[in-house]
Amino acid sequence: MKIAITGGGGFLGRRLAASLLTRPEVGSVRLVDTSPILEFEGDPRVERARANLLDPGAADSVVADADVVFHLAAVVSGQAEAEFDLGMGVNLDATRLLLEAARAGKRTPRFVFTSSLAVFGPPLPTTVDDGTAVHPRSSYGAQKAIGELLVSDYSRKGYIDGRAVRLPTVCVRPGKPNAAASGFVSGIIREPLNGMTAVCPVPKNLELWLSSPKAAVLNLVHAGMLPGEKLGESRIINLPGITVSVGEMIECLAQAAGPEAAAQITFSEDETVRRIVSSWPARFDITRALGLGFVRDPDFRFLIRHYIETEMPSRQL
Amino acid sequence: MKIAITGGGGFLGRRLAASLLTRPEVGSVRLVDTSPILEFEGDPRVERARANLLDPGAADSVVADADVVFHLAAVVSGQAEAEFDLGMGVNLDATRLLLEAARAGKRTPRFVFTSSLAVFGPPLPTTVDDGTAVHPRSSYGAQKAIGELLVSDYSRKGYIDGRAVRLPTVCVRPGKPNAAASGFVSGIIREPLNGMTAVCPVPKNLELWLSSPKAAVLNLVHAGMLPGEKLGESRIINLPGITVSVGEMIECLAQAAGPEAAAQITFSEDETVRRIVSSWPARFDITRALGLGFVRDPDFRFLIRHYIETEMPSRQL
Repeated sequence: MKIAITGGGGFLGRRLAASLLTRPEVGSVRLVDTSPILEFEGDPRVERARANLLDPGAADSVVADADVVFHLAAVVSGQAEAEFDLGMGVNLDATRLLLEAARAGKRTPRFVFTSSLAVFGPPLPTTVDDGTAVHPRSSYGAQKAIGELLVSDYSRKGYIDGRAVRLPTVCVRPGKPNAAASGFVSGIIREPLNGMTAVCPVPKNLELWLSSPKAAVLNLVHAGMLPGEKLGESRIINLPGITVSVGEMIECLAQAAGPEAAAQITFSEDETVRRIVSSWPARFDITRALGLGFVRDPDFRFLIRHYIETEMPSRQL
Repeated sequence: MKIAITGGGGFLGRRLAASLLTRPEVGSVRLVDTSPILEFEGDPRVERARANLLDPGAADSVVADADVVFHLAAVVSGQAEAEFDLGMGVNLDATRLLLEAARAGKRTPRFVFTSSLAVFGPPLPTTVDDGTAVHPRSSYGAQKAIGELLVSDYSRKGYIDGRAVRLPTVCVRPGKPNAAASGFVSGIIREPLNGMTAVCPVPKNLELWLSSPKAAVLNLVHAGMLPGEKLGESRIINLPGITVSVGEMIECLAQAAGPEAAAQITFSEDETVRRIVSSWPARFDITRALGLGFVRDPDFRFLIRHYIETEMPSRQL
């Protein structure tokens, strides 16, 4: 099985590649990103390509002979809001170019499109289900919702065997904050665990819909391995997550790392961030996803423990 | 008030222009179409332009100094299904070019986008409301749903003052059948009224969501005149219609024009047409639209009567 991953040098892309490479049916993985990819040096199964998907021919090179394309490359929410044209280019135009490349090819590849809970916005029902209308309140959310429609229609036409998976907010992301409006969600856990201060731009009672990087990667792999017949006509999937309030996150942090860790967090509301993040739903009916074999984290404590185990090798448990 | 109408030579475009020209606040109407427009000869308020919106500069010329842009130009459902690239070009790319032209301009025009009940598809609730997810089962529906998302996001960003109105199937259309999957809906009334045979490609019990051309035009005008504040953040509107089964339509035809008219209709199922049309909802909650001042036809008899009065001047009532 030949795999291609856009955004292959990113946080999820690298982990997805590593997970796929443990599977016997995966013969090769092509990682494509705008920045150089430093990982997987010397692995003969891995091809690393630096490319801008909007450049002529780039999308065709990505898709080429791939059996499964994972399209992870995206401009994140905060940046797509600040730089509208960039967001439209990467999140919409590049997706179309990939879909057209897949359509033009000889085979009908599986095409996993990473969508997001950000397609939703108010007015929201108590629990979002498969029949809930998207009302994006950010350009990122609108662009992801458009991608879902394209993936669905290209699948219906038989041009691809697509699946659009709506990821929860992934937490705890390691490293530096990115330009996502949800960047603080990882920051308020990661920074205190590393003895640093963090600013929380939303109130404590705000609820979030979260997934560990582990569950997110497992679910992406599963999305790529699932036969199309199991999905039928409905190619959009609300992935499992857990519902946690910011206050509960901070309580878990205090339990895991002591009150001094929690004390590193100060609150200073950021209206733009609060408006975007509070427009996202925190409660989903995930019956269909669980029935299809997608997995869910047990609780928020697991998300903290997973970060400490995988990203802080020297820290005591 | 300066108006621009794409698809201005089409069935609804011409009637929309005529209706707008009766209003004192309308100073000029620019009609744009790919075919020559024969109407409005000699009316100094009307500019008629032949243009393909995908040509460089065409979208800018349309929008130019318009206060209200009505974007009616589209490739209809049956044709967009048969000619995928054409549908993507006209229904998606041309819409984007118009939105970009509006964004680039000095003013923030009202932008009325004609969407359709075709954005919906199964699984459907008993009654579609503002919270119902779109599940297009045609490329036309997918392209219209994408247009709605773009109009909503461009409005949220303040680039336009947009409104996307979901039109019911318009019946009775005069003239020749077009390539819409719903073409038979008018055909099974129009052809018998004119003493011709008609083939119905769907079963009698199929329900439809219909609007007369008169209600459709009145509602388009209203969409263009409504202040943006009344709409708030929610820029997508399910327009009023009436629910009628094919069997009820034929009964009304028999009442209006005698059993010999109804006898002109034969049934021969067309699987493609049936699949597309039966994926559309026939029952909507239109509380919001009525509250905003949009109007509804009284019943299907009115649709037949309206056709006879406006399109068959020599026929006895």
